[in-house]
Amino acid sequence: MTYRAPVAEMVHTLRNVAGLDAILAQSGQEMTPEDVTAILEEAAKLAGERIAPLNRVGDRHGTPLKDGAVTTPPGWSEAYHAFVEGGWNGLGAPVEQGGQGLPHLLAAACTEMWNGASLAFGLCPLLTAGGIEALSAHGSEALKDRYLEKLVTGEWTATMNLTEPNAGSDLSGMRTRAEPNGDGSYRITGNKIFITYGEHDLADNIVHLVLARLKDAPAGTRGISLFAVPKILPDGSRNDLRCSGIEHKLGIHGSPTCSMAFGDQGGAIGWLIGEENRGLACMFTMMNSARLNVGLQGVGVAEAATQKALDYARERRQGRAPGASEPVSAIVAHADVQRTLLTMKAYTAAARGICYLTAEALDAADGPDGKAAFERASLLTPVAKAFSTDIANEVTSLGVQVHGGMGFVEETGAAQLMRDARILAIYEGTNGIQAIDLVTRKLPLSGGDTVRRQIAGLRRIAETLLKEGSPAFGHAAPRLRDAIGSLDRATSYLLGALASNRPEEALPGATPYLRLFGLVQGAGCLATAGLASAAALKAGETDPAHAARIALARFFAENLLPAASGLEQAILEGGGFADEAATVLAV
Amino acid sequence: MTYRAPVAEMVHTLRNVAGLDAILAQSGQEMTPEDVTAILEEAAKLAGERIAPLNRVGDRHGTPLKDGAVTTPPGWSEAYHAFVEGGWNGLGAPVEQGGQGLPHLLAAACTEMWNGASLAFGLCPLLTAGGIEALSAHGSEALKDRYLEKLVTGEWTATMNLTEPNAGSDLSGMRTRAEPNGDGSYRITGNKIFITYGEHDLADNIVHLVLARLKDAPAGTRGISLFAVPKILPDGSRNDLRCSGIEHKLGIHGSPTCSMAFGDQGGAIGWLIGEENRGLACMFTMMNSARLNVGLQGVGVAEAATQKALDYARERRQGRAPGASEPVSAIVAHADVQRTLLTMKAYTAAARGICYLTAEALDAADGPDGKAAFERASLLTPVAKAFSTDIANEVTSLGVQVHGGMGFVEETGAAQLMRDARILAIYEGTNGIQAIDLVTRKLPLSGGDTVRRQIAGLRRIAETLLKEGSPAFGHAAPRLRDAIGSLDRATSYLLGALASNRPEEALPGATPYLRLFGLVQGAGCLATAGLASAAALKAGETDPAHAARIALARFFAENLLPAASGLEQAILEGGGFADEAATVLAV
Repeated sequence: MTYRAPVAEMVHTLRNVAGLDAILAQSGQEMTPEDVTAILEEAAKLAGERIAPLNRVGDRHGTPLKDGAVTTPPGWSEAYHAFVEGGWNGLGAPVEQGGQGLPHLLAAACTEMWNGASLAFGLCPLLTAGGIEALSAHGSEALKDRYLEKLVTGEWTATMNLTEPNAGSDLSGMRTRAEPNGDGSYRITGNKIFITYGEHDLADNIVHLVLARLKDAPAGTRGISLFAVPKILPDGSRNDLRCSGIEHKLGIHGSPTCSMAFGDQGGAIGWLIGEENRGLACMFTMMNSARLNVGLQGVGVAEAATQKALDYARERRQGRAPGASEPVSAIVAHADVQRTLLTMKAYTAAARGICYLTAEALDAADGPDGKAAFERASLLTPVAKAFSTDIANEVTSLGVQVHGGMGFVEETGAAQLMRDARILAIYEGTNGIQAIDLVTRKLPLSGGDTVRRQIAGLRRIAETLLKEGSPAFGHAAPRLRDAIGSLDRATSYLLGALASNRPEEALPGATPYLRLFGLVQGAGCLATAGLASAAALKAGETDPAHAARIALARFFAENLLPAASGLEQAILEGGGFADEAATVLAV
Repeated sequence: MTYRAPVAEMVHTLRNVAGLDAILAQSGQEMTPEDVTAILEEAAKLAGERIAPLNRVGDRHGTPLKDGAVTTPPGWSEAYHAFVEGGWNGLGAPVEQGGQGLPHLLAAACTEMWNGASLAFGLCPLLTAGGIEALSAHGSEALKDRYLEKLVTGEWTATMNLTEPNAGSDLSGMRTRAEPNGDGSYRITGNKIFITYGEHDLADNIVHLVLARLKDAPAGTRGISLFAVPKILPDGSRNDLRCSGIEHKLGIHGSPTCSMAFGDQGGAIGWLIGEENRGLACMFTMMNSARLNVGLQGVGVAEAATQKALDYARERRQGRAPGASEPVSAIVAHADVQRTLLTMKAYTAAARGICYLTAEALDAADGPDGKAAFERASLLTPVAKAFSTDIANEVTSLGVQVHGGMGFVEETGAAQLMRDARILAIYEGTNGIQAIDLVTRKLPLSGGDTVRRQIAGLRRIAETLLKEGSPAFGHAAPRLRDAIGSLDRATSYLLGALASNRPEEALPGATPYLRLFGLVQGAGCLATAGLASAAALKAGETDPAHAARIALARFFAENLLPAASGLEQAILEGGGFADEAATVLAV
């Protein structure tokens, strides 16, 4: 069995939760829902038939480094070229750059698919997308002319060179240097680590986006500049940069994680992107979509793990379920396994809803109410990133559990999904960093109005649910109302602490707050999807997926959402642990 | 850095939470607390200096199989012999069998240590202990004479052969056959999988305990018998059994997981343990302590992950903590990292408390109030196993997170602990099975009195805490009282459903109930430990560990225990998902 992109579910979420129709209308695209489905079906084919079968191959082969060259696993290059030739790399890029100019929303669904098929594979275009955004927004016309088109098609790929041994989450300790050559170019010298797809054989050129420090630049992060440093120079010669090592990692073995050495021979040639000392601002430009994309990786791998576990649970027979007619039941008939599978499905669908909502806000940011939408995207982005990847860890681990002893055996593939997923909560800003970003930078947006509007929107969903009144939703309406209350009170508490300049009261609650936000927003997404399905059923539709969506919204609200009250309590009452920490962690 | 057994913490828990002094008095052992500390210090030395350094070696080398022989990793055999020669294998075995006759409680602390040093190493004596118990309780005198002493010393090891490809949690489908030879021995034929240390080079002989079916035995689990099938027969010849394969696993690579073929050449010779067709009962005899030992493995690996993360957080410098005087702080100074580390410490200490309490109940079962104590051990065992191993998964994953990108790199060692730990929630009965056992078999013990007595004990702790009134405990007393209320109501609900023969209302809540039980019992253990420390401080002691215990009890009660209310809600209100499951899981 292999990954099958859940196209119908994606389309339902895109249209009913994330307002795809309005985004299409805003963008002036002549596109019917049928067109959308057709595009996604085509992507699903590529993901399921070409990419997914490579995932195990990538895990086993890894990406050996020899004489500075990295070899990707068997079949990867062919699949990558099929991906490029299909035009998938430029799906969301503007038409004038050679892209398809489709909304973020559609690109998001496709990103979920590539990564559901293989995180290690999907990571390469994800990095290129970041490079495209940085170049588009800040690159000179000359740089754009030279690199943008080939990056948009995917013929060339891009990397992000941020991390150094002593500069991870905190970039102020960065040591890589840049010196002007006098001809508009710079000489870059230094070493970077954790460079994803820093070297590979999928493309003819690799454009490294490198953060470096100019001589006499201000100390700290205000003295960092961004440079485009290609593997192959415009004259066709090799630049002075090389892959000096490959990490031996827990997962995503198919994706090379490189140590990069720039300037061994005197300096790698690079060109400034944006202004001097404004490199960090350039990086932040692309943060929102890069972090959203990592969230989508989480959704993709959680979906893959859920499908795999469900397939296994339907086949594996152990014990007789209460009331079963057969002597031995498929384990999917046992209540505890059902709870596990429903939990996996519900978390995955909730994270998908949050990620698609975030993509919608990025699209809407180009529309008439741009500022509010951009702030909504900014607010939702850390939740999309961290909640989706936290649940990816949980769901892939539950997937192992459903397989029992077989889950611990690598041949089964469930363990690989768990290993692969483990990076998602770490890279592109650890989930702890996301939580701090949410609380200290995003809650205060527009004086707190951005988050309050979001909560008001959730309240409207809860009211609609209450009015709907169908018994199929069980206790979903009151549970959602309670949880929104928890979110509301926790938000007020944190905003109050920040407003009165007491970050030490807000920071300890950041991680439980992000979880609380994700749970309530996720429940809101599932309720919205369920309400649309309830309306469809009333209108006479008979697709069994409608009843399933209502049931999943109910399960989430009754079984997972009740965690909200405990999180609220931890935020409001549990944060005074600085003294405890000093006491306990010193012993 | 390597694992250092937390001896002082262990001794405090043994004495103040688990009543070691009373158990020593009951057993008539002439042993002072100082003696206990001395023994544990000695074990800690072996664990930290000899075993812990082998853990990475085991992970890298694995246990290759060649021509039927399995080679353990370099250094393992020497360390195992040091373990045997130190007398550690027989710590808990009766003196008349060549053991040290020490209480389960002390053996439990040592088991935690071997496994904190290396799960893969600690697993071997754990299996032998199971074999010793089964033989002691059910073996004939002849069998005991032949095997018990060498197993107690550890010169020989034992295995458990339960699982077959179609018989995992449900043993009724077992196909391995036994036929009497007429001389008191049997010929065993069949194939087993997932046999831990089924073949290795640590010992001269391996006694396989094999479940098999006699001809004309009743169908299902009532037709299964248990046999002792040695690798080397009493006459020195090889028995007709072999290791036919080694699993390629996610973790515990140092421990061979074997497929075993019995009787390729006509039948392996074995001897019946206990009565014919009563093999499952023999297995159940040793369940309590085997499951407790797996729980202790969880505590050990969680402790190792916590130590590793704390060491790293003290060294790694990133960002400036609010109010810090240095420009760049060690990450242990950041609130979010503190929350993570305190969570790791608190869960580990809670699980340790529960496991030691369970060991104490096993010891007390030999005393004057034996039946009640045995039922208490039975009640606590699934909680000790499942809660400890669930938190082991969480804590080892948090350990990776604290390391950031370095956590995903295998050389760091944090990822190995997470991979190794992942088996614990699966083997010796999956945690789902433990939850079902807790709800359907353990809650009804003595008509519900066993669990009610346990809850009453927790209420007494909460009352003491309330009276203690020290501000250092923060809101711990009211939070504990609230959570006990949740446990009490959930227990009554489940007992009611079982009493009125509606298992379909109880089974769906089994997993959240076990978590709820573990949280509340764990909070009770931390509160007890903290109360003892508060008393010690009042008595003038100055050890800073006392304040740390109080702080940890507070952190747990304020930040982790509040999850109780959401779990209660899920149990009481969320269980009606059979219809949802049918709808959702069919789509």
